[in-house]
Amino acid sequence: MLGVVVDAAEPTVVLGEHRVPTPHGSEALVDAVVGLVGRLDPGGTGPVGLGFPGLVDAADVFRTGPNLPGVVDLDVRATLGPRLGRPVRAANDATCATYAEFTGGAAAGARQGVLLTLGTGIGGGLVAGGVVQHGAHGFAGEPGHMLVDPRGPRCPCGRRGCWERYASGSGLGMLGREAAQAGQLAAAVALAGGDDEAVRGEHVVAAARSGDAEAGTVLDEYAWWVAAGIANLVDLLDPAVVVLGGGVIESADVLLDRIRAAVPDQVLGADRRPPVAIEAAHFGEHAGAIGAAILGIQTR
Amino acid sequence: MLGVVVDAAEPTVVLGEHRVPTPHGSEALVDAVVGLVGRLDPGGTGPVGLGFPGLVDAADVFRTGPNLPGVVDLDVRATLGPRLGRPVRAANDATCATYAEFTGGAAAGARQGVLLTLGTGIGGGLVAGGVVQHGAHGFAGEPGHMLVDPRGPRCPCGRRGCWERYASGSGLGMLGREAAQAGQLAAAVALAGGDDEAVRGEHVVAAARSGDAEAGTVLDEYAWWVAAGIANLVDLLDPAVVVLGGGVIESADVLLDRIRAAVPDQVLGADRRPPVAIEAAHFGEHAGAIGAAILGIQTR
Repeated sequence: MLGVVVDAAEPTVVLGEHRVPTPHGSEALVDAVVGLVGRLDPGGTGPVGLGFPGLVDAADVFRTGPNLPGVVDLDVRATLGPRLGRPVRAANDATCATYAEFTGGAAAGARQGVLLTLGTGIGGGLVAGGVVQHGAHGFAGEPGHMLVDPRGPRCPCGRRGCWERYASGSGLGMLGREAAQAGQLAAAVALAGGDDEAVRGEHVVAAARSGDAEAGTVLDEYAWWVAAGIANLVDLLDPAVVVLGGGVIESADVLLDRIRAAVPDQVLGADRRPPVAIEAAHFGEHAGAIGAAILGIQTR
Repeated sequence: MLGVVVDAAEPTVVLGEHRVPTPHGSEALVDAVVGLVGRLDPGGTGPVGLGFPGLVDAADVFRTGPNLPGVVDLDVRATLGPRLGRPVRAANDATCATYAEFTGGAAAGARQGVLLTLGTGIGGGLVAGGVVQHGAHGFAGEPGHMLVDPRGPRCPCGRRGCWERYASGSGLGMLGREAAQAGQLAAAVALAGGDDEAVRGEHVVAAARSGDAEAGTVLDEYAWWVAAGIANLVDLLDPAVVVLGGGVIESADVLLDRIRAAVPDQVLGADRRPPVAIEAAHFGEHAGAIGAAILGIQTR
């Protein structure tokens, strides 16, 4: 996990950062956060914000998340507040990233927008009327498990055909392996050591960068899936801007224009409305930590 | 089209109403609205709100909608304001219905919520922080064309597998005809005059009300599709309440509990969050007109 210290007056400015492995289980996690805060800002008393990969409720209780096994119903404020002797807030990590990108990043000043993190899964955050939305219970902004294909692949959430099966970084790998098993994508398979089953998104991207046409076709297919979900969100929310973050967007050079090109065909009435801006996130892997700090400062 | 006069101090109270056929084309439509307002409130000077079935932008220009053929880019304020001599506002009709249901109807006082109208298609409206959302350009709240099945039936919008192909009233009819063509649903086919191809949603509902098990199975399938889209919205928006309106909800007696039962299985982390309330709309076919009046009053 990544921690940052920011300038309280200009909280998108990072003054210091440190990364430690995320331990298993609630107690070890709390100890690790206390250690990280103590190392980054020894003796400080300012507010601390935390972003969690999963559902965080309106009382700052982390409920559950597939990428924090062994941690359930962790009352972040009650547990960490006394240990740290500081005000503590918690929210979903993509919601935190939304604070960062809409405060001073790719969507600075936008009053209606969406942030999507395309990584192992898909996270999200919503801005309406200039305010980051937490929903009725704190859980707003989870587009990754939108049903987009009822006969699609099984998802670890228990259902089939969730958007993140196709449009996350993992989804790009799946599309690549499907193409490889169909006898295509020789360049990406070579990069994966000759094993169809070992093809991951990074191999497809690398092959496309070197000019491989079949890899480009897989990226087109991937961009169609990303755009399909973005179009669902545009129809529903009418955002001015969609910010794309997460590991996949390190490949913005070969992906962003493909995604931008695929969105209008899928948006309702696209010929009679302004196009939505689609931008790469500005703060990269720091967005969640910066935004958590902003959350802490705004609500201390 | 339906017009209502409401009490300015308590705008969900209808003082008078009148319905006229919706004519074809912009000029005839404007004339008909002028005639309707003159009949309902002769000599009045109060604000007038209009709900349109389609995309209405933030400047009150009706852009386009499949159910108003021949009307495109109609500047409602500029055209109707001088003719009526009153302040004029316009919005999407389901967004208008949202004003009504969240002001004094099924979701009165709720600060986070969604309204869905299940009719020929599916309309929608969103409430965040107690405020009806119009989006960046006025177009927020169109869930009907969410992609939910990329190999699904063609939609008049040009794409495939939009949610409203399955979850609108038209979708219920389609599911009924599919079952009839598979040799099921004899009771509903009889109600449709013995013709598989003539089965509509109302026949399925009537057969289910009379205890036909196969019709009940089709309603279960329909409820699954409605719930699939609701779950997408719950994951994304975390509403406290989802209000269901439109013609389909006249069959709430056989549908509402089926829909309520089908939602939790599809919501992310349903076992660790409060269930979303799913309620039938209170104002029925009047919701759009009452809400349009509220829009006019609130923004005059």
